[in-house]
Amino acid sequence: MIDRLVSNIQKTKAPIVVGLDPMLSYIPEPVKAAAFAESGETLEGAANAICRFNKAIVDAVAELVPAVKPQIAMYEQFGVPGLAAFKKTVDYCKAKGLVVIGDVKRGDIGSTSEAYAVGHLGTVTVGSKTFLPFDEDFATVNPYLGSDGVKPFLKVCEANDRGIFVLVKTSNPSSGEFQDRLVDGVPLYEIVGEKVREWGEELLGECGYSRVGAVVGATYPAMGKRLRELMPKTFILVPGYGAQGGKGKDLVHFFNNDGLGAIVNSSRGIIAAWKQEAYAKYGEEGFAEAARAAVLAMKEDIDQALNAG
Amino acid sequence: MIDRLVSNIQKTKAPIVVGLDPMLSYIPEPVKAAAFAESGETLEGAANAICRFNKAIVDAVAELVPAVKPQIAMYEQFGVPGLAAFKKTVDYCKAKGLVVIGDVKRGDIGSTSEAYAVGHLGTVTVGSKTFLPFDEDFATVNPYLGSDGVKPFLKVCEANDRGIFVLVKTSNPSSGEFQDRLVDGVPLYEIVGEKVREWGEELLGECGYSRVGAVVGATYPAMGKRLRELMPKTFILVPGYGAQGGKGKDLVHFFNNDGLGAIVNSSRGIIAAWKQEAYAKYGEEGFAEAARAAVLAMKEDIDQALNAG
Repeated sequence: MIDRLVSNIQKTKAPIVVGLDPMLSYIPEPVKAAAFAESGETLEGAANAICRFNKAIVDAVAELVPAVKPQIAMYEQFGVPGLAAFKKTVDYCKAKGLVVIGDVKRGDIGSTSEAYAVGHLGTVTVGSKTFLPFDEDFATVNPYLGSDGVKPFLKVCEANDRGIFVLVKTSNPSSGEFQDRLVDGVPLYEIVGEKVREWGEELLGECGYSRVGAVVGATYPAMGKRLRELMPKTFILVPGYGAQGGKGKDLVHFFNNDGLGAIVNSSRGIIAAWKQEAYAKYGEEGFAEAARAAVLAMKEDIDQALNAG
Repeated sequence: MIDRLVSNIQKTKAPIVVGLDPMLSYIPEPVKAAAFAESGETLEGAANAICRFNKAIVDAVAELVPAVKPQIAMYEQFGVPGLAAFKKTVDYCKAKGLVVIGDVKRGDIGSTSEAYAVGHLGTVTVGSKTFLPFDEDFATVNPYLGSDGVKPFLKVCEANDRGIFVLVKTSNPSSGEFQDRLVDGVPLYEIVGEKVREWGEELLGECGYSRVGAVVGATYPAMGKRLRELMPKTFILVPGYGAQGGKGKDLVHFFNNDGLGAIVNSSRGIIAAWKQEAYAKYGEEGFAEAARAAVLAMKEDIDQALNAG
């Protein structure tokens, strides 16, 4: 799957992942009205609105980008109907040839992590039948519980050619509270980064990168540079670009010299572009075209930064 | 909600939470056969089996214990139908008067954590209507992303009188890999513990304990003692008893002198008791009575340890 991610990036020439994190406030009124007319002002109605919105965005950007990253929290907030919309989104994006990174940040002790791994990346057996419950290509994983919480994911990734991105240094303002603490002079995120490298060594793809990637926020470029050196074969998923403050020039050191090794996420900046001044001309009915224009602008920003670097 | 947890503990005289973590292998064949006859060997069939199993267990133990803790991973592994079974389980247990601790270990950056908090502990608005999506009483939270990942949960807990248990020192063998790292001589779990105390100060219940609790594994009794001292008003959710190796005598220092301050979880040891040698006499058809007997034995074990201590 890491091979398919890399080949999708090479095909689209865009190391970009579109974050499908649909807050209801990002969805234009006419889309919500149509959904509520069909399913009522209910959790099902919210799920319906999300599916309509996602479909339009995905149709508009699918040929431009290699991957999407639905953030499951934005679906889970609408309960079981919301999670059904998450599953529909995964299926729709895969049918369009996109690599799907489930941003689920799961992690637990051994047998419980195994259940999460199976649910998101693997197969589960019921009687004599086998199912792919959520069937994402990649999932994000929280490492706080240590190796025995991560290893079940590695096993499932190996068996099913899937991948994970482990949280190393997150993009949010207080990520340093625990992640930057110095252990014998070394920040915790580096210790986690070294573990990520170690976990990934047995799971290299043909492209030379590992199925075990890392999450490192665009908002911490110097730490990104250090982690890039520390984990040369680790693909880095970079959140924090755009709405959170990260710029193209901050991203340069997240990439290797081969121009690969990182994929940059933008969520709000793309899917809610129609609400920004810069894309006002598209109007609310042009929300999907505004998203497409925002992807093209992001691509140019990253291209320029990488070519200048 | 912390007040109701405490009053339920006082009423039942049992600081015990039953972990509803139903692996299919814990469910007796006749229960699975009835479920599959109704819903097929499908994800819905697995969900049906889980609901039948949970209902029987809950009916048998509800009057003996204050709370249950469904582990969402065990439901999520069966996809959307599994999560519908999770929601049914939450509703059924609440109708029985049990406090429900959703073991979801969620945690993300600010706006995303807010979506998780709303989904599990709060209300969400769709058009002019408001819903309680999963509606647990407590949820477990992963602190790796720092304060801005936890604070949205605090806000929702305050608005809806709910609570959280933050992972401090987990029960698994490799929990020390990151949690025990020394920062200026202080292990990371103590630093997290101090944050938990701080987060909880504004959210005290009438009982004197905070709505912000901590998870500390029974498998690390010395660390439990230290954390008990460090967080006097923090309720501790203690996993790791029974199947994971923790014994009654290990639990003594997790409690305060008032006999409160901790609640001990057992999952497999109760719900799969029928598979143990000690409860073989109940047979597979007596699985719920075996669970009841296992709760009574656990209660006696903890009573003895606390009275000896």
